[in-house]
Amino acid sequence: MFRFECDYCEGAHPLILQALAKTNLEQTPGYGLDPYCTRAAARIRQICEAPKADVHFLVGGTQANTTVIAAALRPWQGAVAVSEGHIAVHETGAIEAAGHKVLTLPPHNGKMDAQDLRALCKAHFDDSSREHTVQPGIVYISHPTETGTLYTLHELEALRAVCDTYGLPLFLDGARLAYGLAAEGTDLTLGNLARLCDVFYIGGTKAGALFGEAVVITNDSLKKDFRYNIKQRGGMLAKGRLLGIQFDTLLRNSLYLQIGQHADRLALQIRRTCLEKGLPMAVDSPTNQQFFVFPDTALAKLEQNFTFSPICKPDASHTEVRICTSWASTDTAVNALCSAISAL
Amino acid sequence: MFRFECDYCEGAHPLILQALAKTNLEQTPGYGLDPYCTRAAARIRQICEAPKADVHFLVGGTQANTTVIAAALRPWQGAVAVSEGHIAVHETGAIEAAGHKVLTLPPHNGKMDAQDLRALCKAHFDDSSREHTVQPGIVYISHPTETGTLYTLHELEALRAVCDTYGLPLFLDGARLAYGLAAEGTDLTLGNLARLCDVFYIGGTKAGALFGEAVVITNDSLKKDFRYNIKQRGGMLAKGRLLGIQFDTLLRNSLYLQIGQHADRLALQIRRTCLEKGLPMAVDSPTNQQFFVFPDTALAKLEQNFTFSPICKPDASHTEVRICTSWASTDTAVNALCSAISAL
Amino acid sequence: MFRFECDYCEGAHPLILQALAKTNLEQTPGYGLDPYCTRAAARIRQICEAPKADVHFLVGGTQANTTVIAAALRPWQGAVAVSEGHIAVHETGAIEAAGHKVLTLPPHNGKMDAQDLRALCKAHFDDSSREHTVQPGIVYISHPTETGTLYTLHELEALRAVCDTYGLPLFLDGARLAYGLAAEGTDLTLGNLARLCDVFYIGGTKAGALFGEAVVITNDSLKKDFRYNIKQRGGMLAKGRLLGIQFDTLLRNSLYLQIGQHADRLALQIRRTCLEKGLPMAVDSPTNQQFFVFPDTALAKLEQNFTFSPICKPDASHTEVRICTSWASTDTAVNALCSAISAL
Amino acid sequence: MFRFECDYCEGAHPLILQALAKTNLEQTPGYGLDPYCTRAAARIRQICEAPKADVHFLVGGTQANTTVIAAALRPWQGAVAVSEGHIAVHETGAIEAAGHKVLTLPPHNGKMDAQDLRALCKAHFDDSSREHTVQPGIVYISHPTETGTLYTLHELEALRAVCDTYGLPLFLDGARLAYGLAAEGTDLTLGNLARLCDVFYIGGTKAGALFGEAVVITNDSLKKDFRYNIKQRGGMLAKGRLLGIQFDTLLRNSLYLQIGQHADRLALQIRRTCLEKGLPMAVDSPTNQQFFVFPDTALAKLEQNFTFSPICKPDASHTEVRICTSWASTDTAVNALCSAISAL
Repeated sequence: MFRFECDYCEGAHPLILQALAKTNLEQTPGYGLDPYCTRAAARIRQICEAPKADVHFLVGGTQANTTVIAAALRPWQGAVAVSEGHIAVHETGAIEAAGHKVLTLPPHNGKMDAQDLRALCKAHFDDSSREHTVQPGIVYISHPTETGTLYTLHELEALRAVCDTYGLPLFLDGARLAYGLAAEGTDLTLGNLARLCDVFYIGGTKAGALFGEAVVITNDSLKKDFRYNIKQRGGMLAKGRLLGIQFDTLLRNSLYLQIGQHADRLALQIRRTCLEKGLPMAVDSPTNQQFFVFPDTALAKLEQNFTFSPICKPDASHTEVRICTSWASTDTAVNALCSAISAL
Repeated sequence: MFRFECDYCEGAHPLILQALAKTNLEQTPGYGLDPYCTRAAARIRQICEAPKADVHFLVGGTQANTTVIAAALRPWQGAVAVSEGHIAVHETGAIEAAGHKVLTLPPHNGKMDAQDLRALCKAHFDDSSREHTVQPGIVYISHPTETGTLYTLHELEALRAVCDTYGLPLFLDGARLAYGLAAEGTDLTLGNLARLCDVFYIGGTKAGALFGEAVVITNDSLKKDFRYNIKQRGGMLAKGRLLGIQFDTLLRNSLYLQIGQHADRLALQIRRTCLEKGLPMAVDSPTNQQFFVFPDTALAKLEQNFTFSPICKPDASHTEVRICTSWASTDTAVNALCSAISAL
Repeated sequence: MFRFECDYCEGAHPLILQALAKTNLEQTPGYGLDPYCTRAAARIRQICEAPKADVHFLVGGTQANTTVIAAALRPWQGAVAVSEGHIAVHETGAIEAAGHKVLTLPPHNGKMDAQDLRALCKAHFDDSSREHTVQPGIVYISHPTETGTLYTLHELEALRAVCDTYGLPLFLDGARLAYGLAAEGTDLTLGNLARLCDVFYIGGTKAGALFGEAVVITNDSLKKDFRYNIKQRGGMLAKGRLLGIQFDTLLRNSLYLQIGQHADRLALQIRRTCLEKGLPMAVDSPTNQQFFVFPDTALAKLEQNFTFSPICKPDASHTEVRICTSWASTDTAVNALCSAISAL
Repeated sequence: MFRFECDYCEGAHPLILQALAKTNLEQTPGYGLDPYCTRAAARIRQICEAPKADVHFLVGGTQANTTVIAAALRPWQGAVAVSEGHIAVHETGAIEAAGHKVLTLPPHNGKMDAQDLRALCKAHFDDSSREHTVQPGIVYISHPTETGTLYTLHELEALRAVCDTYGLPLFLDGARLAYGLAAEGTDLTLGNLARLCDVFYIGGTKAGALFGEAVVITNDSLKKDFRYNIKQRGGMLAKGRLLGIQFDTLLRNSLYLQIGQHADRLALQIRRTCLEKGLPMAVDSPTNQQFFVFPDTALAKLEQNFTFSPICKPDASHTEVRICTSWASTDTAVNALCSAISAL
């Protein structure tokens, strides 16, 4: 069985396991106050061209999202996201459990549109009864989005402009950032992200680490007391160095980018095969997640040897599935899948 | 420098790293639905003699405490703990952030006294204005306690009896359970814990794992929908198998017990040395945490080569410190420390 | 200036002020434990044909909604409402501040459709990854709805059937219940509400009281400890008797129904006038709230002497407004408005 | 039966009922945006000598406390109070339900000591592991305290100085402020309160109003968006004018002060009688709450005609009770009580 259901089916990139083994018996202080976290943070500031950024390492994505949003908002504010955003639908109401509404906008090819955002903000702040409704307090986007699509530099700048108008921090969830940075033709670099976002994170869990997300805060007003919040939300790992060691490894010698390139290349191979076979493409994604519609009979045949994530049923006899590659996907597995698709 | 400040200064027990490396490229489903978690859970049910228990693997202690307590309580209920309990003072208000007050009782040698608990419950439930105060809703204890002391079977049964009278679940935080189970003369076994507690956890982070706590739920009424709560509180690891693999390793061939015995033996060696030196013992602890009072001048000398955790200053020229051993403490380090203490 | 912007522009029905004045210097226990609350609760049980119901008096609607929903839900559950429901849009995220997501369905003439509800529940409970999403935990509807429309007995029974299938309590917000019970042709009686809902409230604030909502709980599982929750959410009035006295007055001699009839009659007079004038009706409401679209020039003229609530602008030169009558609306005011509309 | 159990046994001061009746059929906007609220706020700014203060009217004390504290704190901060403070013990965990711990200090004659506060803040902010504990974020005191005692100007200035050192807002709960302002010999005026506190409230519920607390915010940083928070916490009364009318009446022609003087005078008469009888005084209170210890047999006799609040049982045969007077207490009732005590 070859698994294409997600990008976290395996353990960690071998270089990460090696680094963990090599440092295993060293003694360090806990809670992220060790030299490995310090070094990884310095490296991140450097590659983000953000020498004054604060960097914190958290265990996972839901934690990172909740911690950042809870730290940024006042009680009567909410987070604006597209309706299919991770915080809106896949975190069991973690944001609401922290007391905040998720205000949703319709996605456009998975992305938030700056005009939609401006209209929502304008409607709120122009309303004389606005205190009866939740105030937009932070803007949450993902890059790549939930469906693998990418913001352009121009689109991100447009969102930034609206955020500036209304004094809203812009928060970018980079759980799959590796696959976005590595995509062909993208004009969004880490430097651009650091310049345009108030806070964002570089995802490890889905890009070669055992676990871990590196939160980068560039806006001074969000920096104060952030570690209290990490601790309160359960995100402060006792052996914090595990995160430092992993990110220090991932971000050295372009490993992070290579991981993204590898997965994207294999995903595009699957995409070409599906298109050649005439399968309908549900989303036009340039990254490691591909969304195609299969006849149920064909899918049943494939699922004897391959796993995918079901997304929805556009009609009674077809299913849209997500096909994921990762740093760990092999040419063997992908070739086998492509052959099987071609042979349908 | 030898570190004795805590029991999480190193990575993981070598057998755990080995197991992670060996399974690294295997593909499994995520979120704890993999065969390793299944196997570790089965092993835990067996050694706890609790064939119907639910077992969940969470990343860390603050998460485990918040998740269990939030799942067990209704909004107007609080958790009863001793005033120095971890949830009362060392989790940045995580329980309150989940909406619940921590109701405190004075510790007796670190432990909660059943008579105190009964008095608190009686005072509440007999009060005709009780709806103006927080209702006791769960009892939280640690074993070993924050100061390394241990409940006896008799003491735990007494707490259980009060819980039965007032319909309260009993929750035991076993972050350092290894060191308690391994202590000489203890009559509290895993089987007893599973029989007397409604929910408890077997700590991994402080006992040889990279991270992880295994929550064991024996009370049926706490089982329903628990995974929703894990996800919401940020405790559901994408690569959940990392937890399964670690606990499967820890709990095989008595490794967990050996880890505890090793650390306890070295802690008692330090304790004997301190007592022989005439240093005042702040707590009479039979486990891996020892609490002694040092003259500040002597401490300054020791701290050139050893680290400890400061606890408090009983007077202007003395300091109480915590000295911790762990699975990773070496005879070399402990002998060096003991020589240094003797030479003060 | 005649105000038609809402149904809470005045103080209280004169009989209520009389009752308050008459009892003013009597001494009673506080917090709703007085004879007036007892008597009003007994009266409510009687007219609802619900001899075992618990009745609680709260100050306002947002409080009543938050208190009931917080008491009914577990942390990982949400409240299902239509997207224009009061809890979804007009309470500044009070439900989210209590930790819960509001899951929304599209309104059909302001109402929740039983098939929509069933589909949402089925999608959730059939999803093998459901623990990553918020679990439907209570169903919230308003009667009359936000746009003044009414459920039929048949529609309410259909919602009840879905609730039974999925074990969900049905909660009806009756902030304007007077105007619903009094509407011509309605087949929903208080007895039916008490039989079909697990909990609902009889609104006072918008129907002749100074303030106050009477929460009626018929489902035993929601009764326990409810007063704790009222106190915690700030809804327990020290001088609770003010609520008892008001509801005792409102519900005696059919005053509540008369209040509703009076307002509905006047609203329908306005409606007829608007229809005769050819103004587009935005919602077909049989109760005290009417929604019509006016040319902006005509509206400007009317607003010299009358106030309305703006709802939206269907195009650049038209505005939809809400016109409200209440127990306090006078024939004089309504006739003046109708003449002014006719004269446009 | 004469009731001395609390200061909210009756309705409202007759002048308030009169004012409500007189304005009953006037039409005003809702939610506190009416001319009566505007006028009452202006009056409050004037008598507080705080021309820039924001004034908001809330329904009750628990609401006022929760709303102010939730608006002032960030998630990782707590409110500092004495251990017998209202928010610490008598609000069913409302502050915790809003996500915040109440950090407690021992009371000194009911009051918070500035040195204790300084020590708590210093211990926190000097702790290198402070992010594992709740950060002090606001200081909450009551005046009069829960036991009727009063801060002196000097004591309040000392607390202010600590607040200034640590950047903490000082919040004063004035639920019984009338009885404090009216006490003989007090040097705390409304002007002093407004100058020394960042936010405080003038209590109506316990001092002649049907209900209502007037929150006065002098610190600019607490003013922004406060109305959102009132709405979210359920404290925004639809018929907000009821609060404006009441406070406008209470604060005109020194009525508020007269109410306090009346109750304090009667309380001191009871106090003298108890002292003459040789009953032990539990608290030395100069205001409307008196705390005395009675033999249980004597108390049983008194309770045939008078009600009190039980506080505690200092031994098996004695009970400490609270005896309250109010604006509504009559000389007849107090004389009867004093005679009965003298005759014991």
